[in-house]
Amino acid sequence: MKWKLAARSEKMNPSVLREILKVTERPGIISLAGGLPSPRTFPVSAFAQACADVLGAQGEAALQYAASEGYAPLRQAVADMLPWDVDPEQVLITTGSQQGLDLVAKVLLDPGSQVLVETPTYLGALQAFGPMEPQAVAVASDDEGVLPDDLQAKAGGGDARFVYLLPNFQNPTGRTMTEARRAAVVAAARQSGLPIVEDNPYGELWFDQAPPLPLTARHPQGCIYLGSFSKVLAPGLRLGFLVAPKSIFPKLLQAKQAADLHSPIFNQRMVHEVMKDGFLDRHVPTIRALYKRQRDVMVDALRKEMAGLDVQFRVPAGGMFLWLRLPAGIDTVKLLPLAVERGVAFVPGAPFYADADTADARTMRLSFVTASEDQLRTAIAALADTVREQLAHAAAARTQELLAASPT
Amino acid sequence: MKWKLAARSEKMNPSVLREILKVTERPGIISLAGGLPSPRTFPVSAFAQACADVLGAQGEAALQYAASEGYAPLRQAVADMLPWDVDPEQVLITTGSQQGLDLVAKVLLDPGSQVLVETPTYLGALQAFGPMEPQAVAVASDDEGVLPDDLQAKAGGGDARFVYLLPNFQNPTGRTMTEARRAAVVAAARQSGLPIVEDNPYGELWFDQAPPLPLTARHPQGCIYLGSFSKVLAPGLRLGFLVAPKSIFPKLLQAKQAADLHSPIFNQRMVHEVMKDGFLDRHVPTIRALYKRQRDVMVDALRKEMAGLDVQFRVPAGGMFLWLRLPAGIDTVKLLPLAVERGVAFVPGAPFYADADTADARTMRLSFVTASEDQLRTAIAALADTVREQLAHAAAARTQELLAASPT
Repeated sequence: MKWKLAARSEKMNPSVLREILKVTERPGIISLAGGLPSPRTFPVSAFAQACADVLGAQGEAALQYAASEGYAPLRQAVADMLPWDVDPEQVLITTGSQQGLDLVAKVLLDPGSQVLVETPTYLGALQAFGPMEPQAVAVASDDEGVLPDDLQAKAGGGDARFVYLLPNFQNPTGRTMTEARRAAVVAAARQSGLPIVEDNPYGELWFDQAPPLPLTARHPQGCIYLGSFSKVLAPGLRLGFLVAPKSIFPKLLQAKQAADLHSPIFNQRMVHEVMKDGFLDRHVPTIRALYKRQRDVMVDALRKEMAGLDVQFRVPAGGMFLWLRLPAGIDTVKLLPLAVERGVAFVPGAPFYADADTADARTMRLSFVTASEDQLRTAIAALADTVREQLAHAAAARTQELLAASPT
Repeated sequence: MKWKLAARSEKMNPSVLREILKVTERPGIISLAGGLPSPRTFPVSAFAQACADVLGAQGEAALQYAASEGYAPLRQAVADMLPWDVDPEQVLITTGSQQGLDLVAKVLLDPGSQVLVETPTYLGALQAFGPMEPQAVAVASDDEGVLPDDLQAKAGGGDARFVYLLPNFQNPTGRTMTEARRAAVVAAARQSGLPIVEDNPYGELWFDQAPPLPLTARHPQGCIYLGSFSKVLAPGLRLGFLVAPKSIFPKLLQAKQAADLHSPIFNQRMVHEVMKDGFLDRHVPTIRALYKRQRDVMVDALRKEMAGLDVQFRVPAGGMFLWLRLPAGIDTVKLLPLAVERGVAFVPGAPFYADADTADARTMRLSFVTASEDQLRTAIAALADTVREQLAHAAAARTQELLAASPT
């Protein structure tokens, strides 16, 4: 029996990351690889209470089919918590913010059209856009975010449908777009008429001060905003949301309805129940404090263990990830199995680049939130040992080559 | 701000059904329109216990990210409950079986390729397939199901990728494919090499005897099977599953990962917990008994209230729906607002036809499971009154026309 597949299926290959990460699932490995929130932050007892309350008071409604738009009080709560004027009618509850990416791709991307992305960028976004067969075009960036000039040039250069941006504590780099850059990026988008899809799963996880206002707050008619409950409550419920201009909301809603009818109403009512009475205002600061301590532990360990090595990283001001660049000669894809032998796993940086040719093989993404403080110290020490060993091997190999090439 | 939409978005128009049904949401209307299971069948207290158990014993795991394939014990439970040899590695847990349709479309349908469907068929499937821009081709059918000859002719006539079939208590017609027809349809599919996508949300809801074996059980390498927990437990959790041959499973899995990473693991663990110890074997018979009583009430009411009218229907042997054909001269789309005035809502049949030209304007779908027995009797009486009134109006109008046309 031969199945004829759609052309787009040919491009659906096992996620490089997924294959790489399989090796990290061995028992005894300290993983800095996953994008998993610390389970210590999950409000298990608040959820238990909310389950009991929802099933007790609204059991039948919580288990029945529901509106594709989402649970009205939850849409209202989302509108209320965002820092610009949002009508609940613009809020669509999604099955995780990953689904928001799928819906946006369906509604906006034709085969051969362009989607502009930061490079590196969130791998899951590239995977969500892929089935609609766009061309991903990398926009140049520096420490402050994408470069407005390059954005504008690429907005006008082809059939670009939108630029996908993660302004806060970006996955994978941990970078945050500055206030000045946000203003300039929005100006460039306005001028070129290029829509922005703004993904903000980590924005609440700031350590010392809140990041600048979202891009969408500055240009609501030109942006679709994606948010998530995964990092402030728990990812296992798969609840996110998008906020879209009213002109395109109906198309996103119809795509949503076709995709899964609606997100689980039980989960929506439970999250609404948990969020009541300002729960997030009390809960999220505890996550921030924990993640800040963990970041400090990782940064201290890197400074101590990597001393003398040519490693580069920026200290993230929030979120979950630190982006590390290792000395010349190190390829992190090749380094990974050696690190795993020493009991530590990370994600090599290369898969996060939309264009494999520009991928920086010296980079890796480290999560500082899943492992414990002791594990972080142990893992960074093991990683430094692996790097030093690799550099020594490379130096020895070069000496061998030189000897072999020299006249005997 | 002008958004350039993907070509497929042009085809995403507000569901006709959705617009029609808005009118039915007025208070005081007895709705026979929705496909909503009776909330009396939701095992609320079993879910409450399962929530408490899952959060108590596995709280962190139930709230964390999880595997895209689904929760392994639930995949095993699905494999165990199906009546053919299924490896749990072939089972993908989906966000409702609606998502299974979305994934199948992404993996198998190219723009301009063909998807063969029964006519009428499940509207949500047409909506899920639509964004991949196939051509929907109707296969002729009779009371036993699709006609194997026509299936084979259309399988070979163009770029057909699969035939979508609901063999049990079909939505919207309530029809069940006979044993002989299943054998012939599978033979035709084998011979033409045409894959079958078999959707079976209602199969467990039989009244007197279980329906014949699924098509997939007869031809597992040539079929994708879609199942759902919505009708045997509750739709508000949005959990379904698909079973696919191992050759194409990886593509479906990758499409799933890109669509929403995974279905809510909390819901998966909860459903697994509820299903333990043979719960469905005790619970599902109570649903069957309730729905059978409700069907009987509707059928009795139709026979009584519609006596003397040229109405046609088959008595469904299971499921949730009865398909009614009204006398010549009635257009059910036009009848709906009049019925709503009399306090009853239904779904006109026309939107369920893939090809609007072949739509039978005299048909409607009635759900016998959501309303109570008393409501069913009241609703059918009101519907009969509406039909009689319409026929009288039509007769009067014809008399007027004749009078106007006759020489004065």
